[in-house]
Amino acid sequence: MSFDHLQEAIIAKKNPTVAGLDARIEYVPQYIRDAAYAQHGVGLQGACEAIWQFNVGLIDALCDIVPAVKPQSAYYENLGWRGMEMLERTIAYAKSKGLFVIADIKRGDIGSTASAYAEGWLSAASIEGQAFKTFDADCVTLNGYMGADSINPFLKAAKGEDKCVFVLVKTSNPGSGELQNIPAGEGDTVYGVMSDLLEKWGAGTQGKYGYTMAGGVTGATHPQELREIRARMPHTFLLVPGYGAQGGTAEDVQYAFQDKGRGAIVNSSRGIMCAWQKTGGDGHDFQEAARNAAIAMRDDICRYITIE
Amino acid sequence: MSFDHLQEAIIAKKNPTVAGLDARIEYVPQYIRDAAYAQHGVGLQGACEAIWQFNVGLIDALCDIVPAVKPQSAYYENLGWRGMEMLERTIAYAKSKGLFVIADIKRGDIGSTASAYAEGWLSAASIEGQAFKTFDADCVTLNGYMGADSINPFLKAAKGEDKCVFVLVKTSNPGSGELQNIPAGEGDTVYGVMSDLLEKWGAGTQGKYGYTMAGGVTGATHPQELREIRARMPHTFLLVPGYGAQGGTAEDVQYAFQDKGRGAIVNSSRGIMCAWQKTGGDGHDFQEAARNAAIAMRDDICRYITIE
Repeated sequence: MSFDHLQEAIIAKKNPTVAGLDARIEYVPQYIRDAAYAQHGVGLQGACEAIWQFNVGLIDALCDIVPAVKPQSAYYENLGWRGMEMLERTIAYAKSKGLFVIADIKRGDIGSTASAYAEGWLSAASIEGQAFKTFDADCVTLNGYMGADSINPFLKAAKGEDKCVFVLVKTSNPGSGELQNIPAGEGDTVYGVMSDLLEKWGAGTQGKYGYTMAGGVTGATHPQELREIRARMPHTFLLVPGYGAQGGTAEDVQYAFQDKGRGAIVNSSRGIMCAWQKTGGDGHDFQEAARNAAIAMRDDICRYITIE
Repeated sequence: MSFDHLQEAIIAKKNPTVAGLDARIEYVPQYIRDAAYAQHGVGLQGACEAIWQFNVGLIDALCDIVPAVKPQSAYYENLGWRGMEMLERTIAYAKSKGLFVIADIKRGDIGSTASAYAEGWLSAASIEGQAFKTFDADCVTLNGYMGADSINPFLKAAKGEDKCVFVLVKTSNPGSGELQNIPAGEGDTVYGVMSDLLEKWGAGTQGKYGYTMAGGVTGATHPQELREIRARMPHTFLLVPGYGAQGGTAEDVQYAFQDKGRGAIVNSSRGIMCAWQKTGGDGHDFQEAARNAAIAMRDDICRYITIE
C-alpha cells in the first residue's frame, strides 16, 4: 500500500490521523489483564494475550474512523519473541480490517542487512528460492543516519510490493535539536540536509498524488520547523508525531499539509488508546472512549484543513 | 557485562575481535539445512532450526578464541517471530559459554519507547511489578540521530545491569559520508559532532579501564577518520566493523586502539561464518574453518598491536 493508497484512505474517511498501537500493559483495562492472566499466568504470555485482546478491540472500534494504525515495535520487543508473534498477528488483523499499517521500527542499517530488515518487514524472506512473509506491514519508519545505503534496500522492497517508508527528519522529542539542529552544510541544519537527501532518495518514485515512496517524519512539537520542512519537501509525504500528549496542537499540525489537506498524517497514541482512563470507568468502555477520542482528534484537525 | 568485563575478556584471550552471527540461511552448510528441512519443512521453522544448529556449532568452536559475538538482529527479524525466538536462544547460549553478547540492533527512539527497547534488550520487562527478561544481551548498538533522549534510557537500563551500549559515529558503508561527513558545527562534521555528543552522554560512567558505558561504532574502512575519532574520544570504547569482506585491514584497524591494545573490538562476520565455503569441502568442517579464520584474524590484528 503506497502513499497513493494512504492518501485515498484519508480522503475517503476525511481523516488524516493514524492511531498508535503502543502495546503497553499499563494501557490495558484491568479486567482484560485479569482474564488473560487467569488463562496464561502473570508473565510474558499473559501480557501478550491481554494486549492482543486490547489491540483487537481498538482496531474494531477505530477501523471505520481512522485510515491507519501505527504499532510501535519497541513495546512488542519489550515482551521478547512472544511480543513479536503478537505483533505479526496485530498487523495482519489491522490489514484484514482495511487499515494501512505503519510499523514504527526506525531501523537503519546497510546493504544486505538492510535488505534482510526490508524483507522481514515489507516483502518476504527468501528460503531456498521460496518467499515467506512475516511482519508484512504496509510501511515502516527508518533512520537515515547511515545514508542512502540504509534506505535504498527498503525502497527496492517497497517498490516490488507497492509499499512505502518514512525516514526521520526532525523528530518530536525535546532533545531532537541536539544533533538535528546543529548548523550544517551551507547555512543549513542537519535536519535540513536530511530533508534534501530524502527528496533526492525518493526522486523518480512519485505516485498519482505527487508523493515519492520515501516519506518523512517531522514532529508537531516544532511548528516553525514543520512549516519550513513542508515547504522544502514538496514531494514528501509527512508522518507527524507529537500531537496531544507531547504538546502539539491542531493549529501546529496544519502546517504539515499541502493543498486540499493532502500529504500528511498525524499520529496519536496515548490520546486514543488511553482515552478510557479519563471517562471515570473501569475500562469496559475502552472501545467507545477510543472511538470518541479519534473522532474528536479528526474534528480538531479538520477545523484547520479541508480534505479533498 | 560492562566494558570492564569486555576489556578483561579481550586481555584474557589476547584477542580484540568479535564474531558476527548473521543468521543467513545461505551461510549454513547444505547438510545442516537438509536435516532441518526434513524435520520442519522448507520454511521459516526449518530455516530457524538450521541456523540455530549452525549458531551452536559456531559458538562451540569459537568460545575459547573470541571474547564476544554479535548477532545482527536484521537476519533474525527477517524470519519473523520464529527468528526472534531463535535469537533469544542464541544470546542465552552464547552467554552460557562465557561470551560477551553485543546485540546489533541499531535502535533509536525516545522516552518511554526507548525504555521499552532497553528493557527488552538489556534489562527486563515489567509486568504487574514483576521483572521478565527476554533478549537480555550484554550490550546493544544504537543510533543517536534523535539525541540524548534516545540514549539515556538505555544507559539507565545498562547501569542497573552493569551493561553497556555502542552508538553509531562513523559507519563503514561506502555512502556513510552522505550525512555523516557533511560540514557541521564549527569547522567540524556531523560525525565529529556526534563524537563529542557521545563523550558527553557517557560522562561520569567510566569503569576501571577508563571507558564510559557509551561506546561508539566507527568503521575500519575509513582509517583516517578512525584515527581522528580515536583521538577525540579518549573515554569511548570502539566497535569497529568493516574488517575483511568490506575492505578494512589489520593495518587500518590498529588506529582504533589505545595504549596496551585497549579500547576497541573489531568485528568480522562473513570472514568467520563463511570460512567453510573456502576450504573446498561441503561444510562438515565449518567449525574448524571458523576457528581457523578467527585465529588468523586475531593473529593478523595482533601484528600491529600488543594487548596487555
